[in-house]
Amino acid sequence: MKLVTIDDIRIAADRIRPHVVRTPLLAARWGDGRRPLWVKPENLQPVGAFKVRGAFNAISALTGSAATGDGPTVVAYSSGNHAQAVAYAAAAHGLTAHIVMPEETPKIKVQATREYGAQVVLCAAGERETVAAQVLADTGGVLIPPFDHPDVIAGQGTIGLEIAADLPDVQNVLIPVSGGGLASGIGVAIRALCPQARIFGIEPELAGDTAAGLACGHRVDWPIEDRNRTIADGLRSQPSDLTFAHLQQVLDGVITVAESEIRAAVRELAHRAHLVSEPSGAVALAAYRKGATPPGRTVLIVSGGNIEPQMLQQILGESAPEEI
Amino acid sequence: MKLVTIDDIRIAADRIRPHVVRTPLLAARWGDGRRPLWVKPENLQPVGAFKVRGAFNAISALTGSAATGDGPTVVAYSSGNHAQAVAYAAAAHGLTAHIVMPEETPKIKVQATREYGAQVVLCAAGERETVAAQVLADTGGVLIPPFDHPDVIAGQGTIGLEIAADLPDVQNVLIPVSGGGLASGIGVAIRALCPQARIFGIEPELAGDTAAGLACGHRVDWPIEDRNRTIADGLRSQPSDLTFAHLQQVLDGVITVAESEIRAAVRELAHRAHLVSEPSGAVALAAYRKGATPPGRTVLIVSGGNIEPQMLQQILGESAPEEI
Repeated sequence: MKLVTIDDIRIAADRIRPHVVRTPLLAARWGDGRRPLWVKPENLQPVGAFKVRGAFNAISALTGSAATGDGPTVVAYSSGNHAQAVAYAAAAHGLTAHIVMPEETPKIKVQATREYGAQVVLCAAGERETVAAQVLADTGGVLIPPFDHPDVIAGQGTIGLEIAADLPDVQNVLIPVSGGGLASGIGVAIRALCPQARIFGIEPELAGDTAAGLACGHRVDWPIEDRNRTIADGLRSQPSDLTFAHLQQVLDGVITVAESEIRAAVRELAHRAHLVSEPSGAVALAAYRKGATPPGRTVLIVSGGNIEPQMLQQILGESAPEEI
Repeated sequence: MKLVTIDDIRIAADRIRPHVVRTPLLAARWGDGRRPLWVKPENLQPVGAFKVRGAFNAISALTGSAATGDGPTVVAYSSGNHAQAVAYAAAAHGLTAHIVMPEETPKIKVQATREYGAQVVLCAAGERETVAAQVLADTGGVLIPPFDHPDVIAGQGTIGLEIAADLPDVQNVLIPVSGGGLASGIGVAIRALCPQARIFGIEPELAGDTAAGLACGHRVDWPIEDRNRTIADGLRSQPSDLTFAHLQQVLDGVITVAESEIRAAVRELAHRAHLVSEPSGAVALAAYRKGATPPGRTVLIVSGGNIEPQMLQQILGESAPEEI
């Protein structure tokens, strides 16, 4: 299987530069002395998540970087950040996007996707892939998958280029894992540019399929009913063959975190980093705080900030006084 | 009166570069069509506020930029972000800092200032200047004022250099005003580099002394009891002769905002920009949302993120469903 290379990631960086935020690496004075901490705030990207990097790279690869409108219709199925990322990137390239979303998707996300100019196709739960196939057939469009694609992986990997430029002597990199595109891409970049660094994937305990799979050397399938238990709704997917092969090669380990640890990390990011993170975006801090990561200069990825207002308010209200 | 120049600000930028975050200018898709919006997130600075820029420039000007410890003791009086900024900048230069804080300062802020290595001197309310004078006499130290100093103004002005580099055709810049150091510095830079842009100071209605002063052509004094009514605790100071002279020269106007508008802006920044802002940091968005700013490409400064957890939770809980 051909894996993404550092050269692929460098090409991606050139493609997406005009469209994504070159996020700063924020030194966090509130880390501990043995593990100095930096935060990479991908929640500040357009659409509020790192997903724009992969979406832009995949769509730019189809069309060239100019916004000519001269290219295929693009299609995606997603109830989350990938939907808005594809809608946003397609609009920037002057292309039509069709996004297939389950009917139970929160209205706020459907509306946001439409506001980026996409056609939203609502479908019954579990019918996303079937309906997307029909839309592809009807439109002659091209599918932009959320993680199972080399251009998407290479786009997410541009985060690793930026970390290597800003902190070349990084020792630990902590990356949320769901379908594995983010960790695959960053992992390839860090392995190439910072070979001294250890790279950890972070998962909710309740969606710990990747930890289990890497432990036994092959992908394992957790029922979606199980994975749906975690509050981290962006981390309920499972790696594909392609991303699993990357993760086997680039990760030093996977750390799982409890739901209460995720919620505490959302609070800490708000109060200390002044960042609103969605639960999925906060798992790396949760792993750091539970003491599961080794000593050394540590970078954690805050992958996204799209949290429902009611959930944010609820989580902030749970804090014990001594925690803050 | 000698005002700060663009050259002073360029020197400041060179001095502070290793110590402060080069914050990105975030394109906000949630602005309106007539007034495309960008956000400058200074809440992501060390200590959570733009104040580090001025403090680093003033202290670097005393000592040279190297952290040699070869320089005077520095002294400041502040209950807010300036205290932590001076403590942080002094520590980075290897200098001792004494910070005079009123006894009623929230413990969390006293503790944070101590964690940056400063000696905190608690004093009775209203005694800050007297006690600081005594500390200066005892230590032979140098006072770093929060705004009434050319090096502090020049340091804050580096934000303007970054805006001009990132969005040279900016048309409106919205800046919170308290003592006026931030608006003075940014205003000098924008006037020099983007002469087409209009520059607006933003104040709470309840601390609208600068709006009143500029309207009548001289500083006016509002009783501190009046200014203390606003939730925006960082905007309760008044300009000095030095900053008022700058504001007269660089501002196109001052817009005042109501308390409810400030609270709504804190909510909007959390939900749409994924940024935790203190009330003082959100006033520029409040002015934009009330429709008080003219058409054109608009940059607003989110000046800081240090909000008490309980206050953040309370403000987020006030949202009307249709607002989000």
